[in-house]
This record gives sequence, structure tokens and C-alpha cells, in this order.
Amino acid sequence: MPDNSRLVREKLDQAAAILDELGIDAWLTFVRETALSPDPSLDLILGLDMVWQSAFIVTRDNQRIAIVGKHDMENVEAVGGYTTIIPYVEGIRESLLSVLLQIDPQTLALNYSESDVAADGLAHGLMLLLQRYLIDTDLAERFVSAEPVIAALRGRKSHLEVERIQAAIETTLAIFYQVGEFARPGMSEVEVASFVHDLCQEQRLDTAWEADYCPTVSAGPSSPIGHAGPMVQYVIKPGALVHMDFGVRQDDYCADLQRVWYVRRDEDDAPPHAVRQGFEVVRGALQAGLEALVPGAQGWQVDAAARTAIVEAGYPEYQHAFGHHVGRAAHDGSTVLGPRWERYGDTPMGVIEAGNVFAIELGVEVEGYGYVGQEENVLVTPEGGRWLSDPQTEVWVI
Amino acid sequence: MPDNSRLVREKLDQAAAILDELGIDAWLTFVRETALSPDPSLDLILGLDMVWQSAFIVTRDNQRIAIVGKHDMENVEAVGGYTTIIPYVEGIRESLLSVLLQIDPQTLALNYSESDVAADGLAHGLMLLLQRYLIDTDLAERFVSAEPVIAALRGRKSHLEVERIQAAIETTLAIFYQVGEFARPGMSEVEVASFVHDLCQEQRLDTAWEADYCPTVSAGPSSPIGHAGPMVQYVIKPGALVHMDFGVRQDDYCADLQRVWYVRRDEDDAPPHAVRQGFEVVRGALQAGLEALVPGAQGWQVDAAARTAIVEAGYPEYQHAFGHHVGRAAHDGSTVLGPRWERYGDTPMGVIEAGNVFAIELGVEVEGYGYVGQEENVLVTPEGGRWLSDPQTEVWVI
Repeated sequence: MPDNSRLVREKLDQAAAILDELGIDAWLTFVRETALSPDPSLDLILGLDMVWQSAFIVTRDNQRIAIVGKHDMENVEAVGGYTTIIPYVEGIRESLLSVLLQIDPQTLALNYSESDVAADGLAHGLMLLLQRYLIDTDLAERFVSAEPVIAALRGRKSHLEVERIQAAIETTLAIFYQVGEFARPGMSEVEVASFVHDLCQEQRLDTAWEADYCPTVSAGPSSPIGHAGPMVQYVIKPGALVHMDFGVRQDDYCADLQRVWYVRRDEDDAPPHAVRQGFEVVRGALQAGLEALVPGAQGWQVDAAARTAIVEAGYPEYQHAFGHHVGRAAHDGSTVLGPRWERYGDTPMGVIEAGNVFAIELGVEVEGYGYVGQEENVLVTPEGGRWLSDPQTEVWVI
Repeated sequence: MPDNSRLVREKLDQAAAILDELGIDAWLTFVRETALSPDPSLDLILGLDMVWQSAFIVTRDNQRIAIVGKHDMENVEAVGGYTTIIPYVEGIRESLLSVLLQIDPQTLALNYSESDVAADGLAHGLMLLLQRYLIDTDLAERFVSAEPVIAALRGRKSHLEVERIQAAIETTLAIFYQVGEFARPGMSEVEVASFVHDLCQEQRLDTAWEADYCPTVSAGPSSPIGHAGPMVQYVIKPGALVHMDFGVRQDDYCADLQRVWYVRRDEDDAPPHAVRQGFEVVRGALQAGLEALVPGAQGWQVDAAARTAIVEAGYPEYQHAFGHHVGRAAHDGSTVLGPRWERYGDTPMGVIEAGNVFAIELGVEVEGYGYVGQEENVLVTPEGGRWLSDPQTEVWVI
């Protein structure tokens, strides 16, 4: 486990500044049994699991108050960053009420959001319980969604966070290179995935998302694309493509990349024209999206730049978003670089900020060969997007 | 990854029967991005992560309907158990609305609960979104908490689930025995924990809860008890106790056990009288609790039996609950065998059922030596509690 104290303290400093910037008086993260019911924000501002009901309050004037079960007190102290830690034994209500009444915030941000799953860490039953705790006050009328607080806090990666993502990317790319050496005609998708899992195991790394689908491996034109797991019945064959979507989680931070290989037949000097053409279109659309990825742009505008490039090249639109934040999770919530479709809610309306890190991705089917997809990870700087992953520039050959 | 298809089908069968027993027409589990925002119920009825908004509906008359993103459809089909799977691309609302209107349930159970974290998987923002989707109907007025459905479904372990818990217990006990061989005076708590983590790593097992606190290791009388992590400054010493709280998660099911060792001085024939006496009191109280753990009893009554035994023996009350469900999580939600304190909400009022598996635990401080704590795992049968773990019957000696 990495030591997260420095990171938590960086994030708590950021949080107070963001509250001030947004004009929100206080932010309450209210949790219980987080091993079973995690709140994604707690990773940023504590980095520990809590068992009993626990409250973490940051105020605009930079108070950081934790109210936790007696047994958890030492652990919270060890993290550092909280100015006041209040332990309880029988119930949290009294201490919570007294702290909130003393702060007396005019706006109290809570972790719920219709659109942003990373900002939706407060369970509905726990919300009802909180309302019951506060029933003799008017505090519940001052609740606001913490969505903008969390979007900024999670999205603006600190220096240490970018370093960790970069390290996860390097590790992930090294595994992609090893897969290229390992993969041979006759191997099934499942064999490739097992090889990747063994490499992770040796390095004691988790996969960036559920291991059953991380990596996804697609061999040839019949293998389904999307969130399907690797299957034994799809086998690497000469004259077809192998595509892999994969990332590691290393020191709590993720990479999320896609690469594509062509499996050479004896008669091939190079991948077939249709494959190379598909790849160039994908690469061009990725580049078009990257150029639109500037601070101040809205997520849907970035998606539209890439989507237009694909459609203008005569290929069908991809049926997903062009990009998503990457960080503690492979899908790190907040602004999505996606079309304004119902299922994306308000997330494509979010505004790109310097310090954001995105995974950008798209692909096309090449008939008879398989799926050409590419995914890269990008840091937004004040001057625009900068590759964090060394981008794939041609179809790799097995 | 174990193949969970059989388990999911067992649980779906159970779910329909429980709805009928409780007189609830339909149960809706509504999720999104479950890697970041998991709903504990989804593990039981699907066993996969979903990315897009997804709805899983079980009805009293045994329909099982999944509405999922197009990319997830194949994976849901592969699990089996759903009678209808409806894919979507742009948004779930239309399909969800049409399915619910067609079922037309008079009561629609949703995953929220003030007391039971395992039944509180629906995030507040997602609840608001659902209410918005259904705004032109009166369906939101028919919402009820799925707490009793989930408590029964999660709590009544199937045969396959008990087998898996039993296997996790055996593995955990084997690790305890190895710790007893390994631990020597001069080693720190952290060294013991690292040894345990290495054993888990070799067997590719996760710890039952966060690895930083699994195991907890307490060496000697000064080491803090509770959820504190192992610390380098506390070292195994002759004439003091070593206590460990630990469990593995194996094939998705957990064990949660505590054992205690006494570190022999040259002059010791046996652990000191005070240590042996403390252990006998703990063991007696555990036995008193076990005897009260019968179908039909309420959680607080079981706790009271153990608590009374400790107090009557002249030791201070433990400041936690006597027991909790164990299963997919070490703290598996639902009924708690605990006192009627505020922080336990209604959970001590729950009724014990045959098929439940509990971890039962308590301990006392023995002045000058350290913490004597014992935790065992128990299956409730129609005739009463039965040890699943081979219980510790005397203080082990290092």
C-alpha cells in the first residue's frame, strides 16, 4: 500500500480552496461500512475504510473535522490533515449535530449527483438517516449537491496524482509489449488474458477494472466488442486482428489503454490496406479529439470533433463516449467527453480544466479482419492536451 | 474467478420466493458504474460489474428482467438466470418505464435502508434520477424499502454459499497455524502482517477486509485494539500476548476469526493465571452467546446473553456488537447481534433465521499482558448455532 498521507493532505487543501471558489460553506462526506458501501470521495480525503457511521467535514475557512467511531480514531489521526477528530461510542448524532450547528453553514454540500457517479457516494438510506438526525434543525434545507466540489477535486489532478497515473501507464504499456511478444496464432483470447493476469500477479498489481474484463481481448472479426470478456472459442489467426483494452491500477491510480495488432500471413509484407486505412482514420479522429481538448471546452464538443472526423471519413459513429476521466478509477467520473445522449445525463456539459487526465478512445470494425481500436491517456495543460501514453502510430504486427 | 452462474441462479430462485413470502410484487436493483459505485445486492443476483445504467427486476411471479447497455448484454446472457434481457444504446428510461408499466407492481422494492448497509446500495442521486424517469407515472408512490427482501436473500445462505464460507474458514485457520509457527520475540506487528500477506499472495487470495487492517495484530498491553493497523513500534515480547483478527476472501466468500497467543518466558510452565482466567471468561461468554443464537431470537437478545456473561464475571462490557453476518463481506449487513445503541439503528431487532452464518466475537484486556479476544464463525441450524470454525479452546503458546 502506498503512503497516502501526503496525497490526502494535498486534496484537503484543494477542497477548502474549491469550496471558497464555489461559494459553498461546508462539505460533508457521510459514510458507514465503506468496505461494503464505498463513497468514491472518501479515497481522496481519507484513504481508509470506515466501519461505523463517520462524518468528514471541510469548511470554506479550512476547518477539517472528522467524527468517527472510537476504534477508528487512531487511524484517522495517523493519516493527518484533520484539524479536529471527535470520537464516539454509542452514536454519531449528537456530535454531528453539535458540530454542524456550530459551523452553521448556509450551504452544506452532500455527495449526491444524478449525473456524476463519482459524486454520488451517499446512499439513499443513509441520506434518510441523516435527515432524521437533523430533523429538529433547518439544516436539511441547506443541502446542496457536492457535484461541482467533487468534480473539481477529483478532476484537477495534483502533481503526485499525475506521477502515479504516468507510472501506471508505463507499466501497462510494458505489459502490452510483452503481449506482442507472447501472442501466437492458435492461442485463444483467454490464454492471452491469463498471460496478462500472470504478469499482474508477479508485480502484485490489480487490474484497473474487473479482472474478468481487464483485459478484454478480441481476436478476429467474429469476437464481440465492448465489455465482453475474453472467450476460449476465439483464437488468434493469421490474417486477422487482435485488439486489447487494458490497464493496471498501481499505487491506487489507473491507466486505460487500447492497442491493436495484425497477425501476419506468410504472404503479407504489411497489414492489408483496409486495416491500415481503418487505423489511420482512428488515429486521425483521436488526434482531432486531442486538438479539441482544451481548458474551457465542454465535453460534448471534444466528442463531436472526433465523431465528425470518423463520420466524414465514411465510417460509422462509435456508440460510446470519446473519453472519460482516468485516475483513481479507470472511469473516474465527472465530465464525460461524450454526445448529449440521455444516458450521459449532464456529464457531457462539464467544462475541461487544466490538470484533468482523460482516456480518449474510439475504433472501427474492418470487415473480415476485426476491430481497430485505439485508446490513449492525455493530460490537459493550459496549452491543450498532452499525451501521457506514447501513442500507437501504426498497427503492430505479430 | 469462480463460476458464479449456479450461485446467481440459486439466489434468483430464492429472491422470487422471498418476494412472494413478503407479499412484495417486484424488486428493482438499479445501478450504474458499479466498479466505482457498487450495490452489494448485485453480487448476489448478477455477479458482474455494469458500466451503463442497468436495471434488474425480479417479480413475485418469477419473472427476471434485465435492462442493460448493449455492450453488457452478452455478459448478462452468459450468467444465465434472466428470462428477458433488453439492451439499449442511448438511454434506459424508455425500456425501464415500459417494463415497469407492464408489470404494474403495487409495491416496488428498491435498495435503500436506514439501518442495513447491505440493503442500501441505491445511491441518493440515482434515486433522484429514477424518480425523474418515472415522473409521469405514480410508480414512485409504490416504492418500498427492499431491506426485508435483501436481509432474507443475503442472510439465508444456500448450500453452495455455506461450502464456500467453510472453505474460507479452513484457509484462514491454516494461516493462523502458520503464524503461530512463524512468530518469534522481537518481531514487530508489521512483520507478522507482512508474513500473512505473503501467504495470501502465494495462494492468490484477497483479505476479507482492507489489507491495511487485515490482519490486525496486537502485540502486548500497549498496542491499541480495534481497527488499528499493525505498527512497527509494537514488538512481540516474552510474557505478553499476541492477538490477531483476520480472514481471507476465497471464491468471493469470507471468514472472520480471532486467535490469541501467549509468548512464553523461560520461567513459564503455562500462560499466567490472569491470562487463562480472561480466556476462560471470553470463551464462556462466547458459548453463552452461541446458546442464545437460535432461529426466532432477535439480534440484541444474543448480544445480551454474551454481554451479561462478561459483566457477571466482573469484566467490563465490550464496546461493540457480539456478532455480525459473514458471507460475501466480512460484515455482511442485515441483523446485528448487538445492543440497542443508536449507531446500530434497527439492526439488533432483526430475527435470526436458519441458514444464517455469523461471526461472533468478544474480548477482554488482561492488565499487563494484552488483549484476549476470540472470534468464531457459526451456522444457525433449526436446532441452534453450530461452529463452522474449530473453536480455540485454550490460549496458544509461542
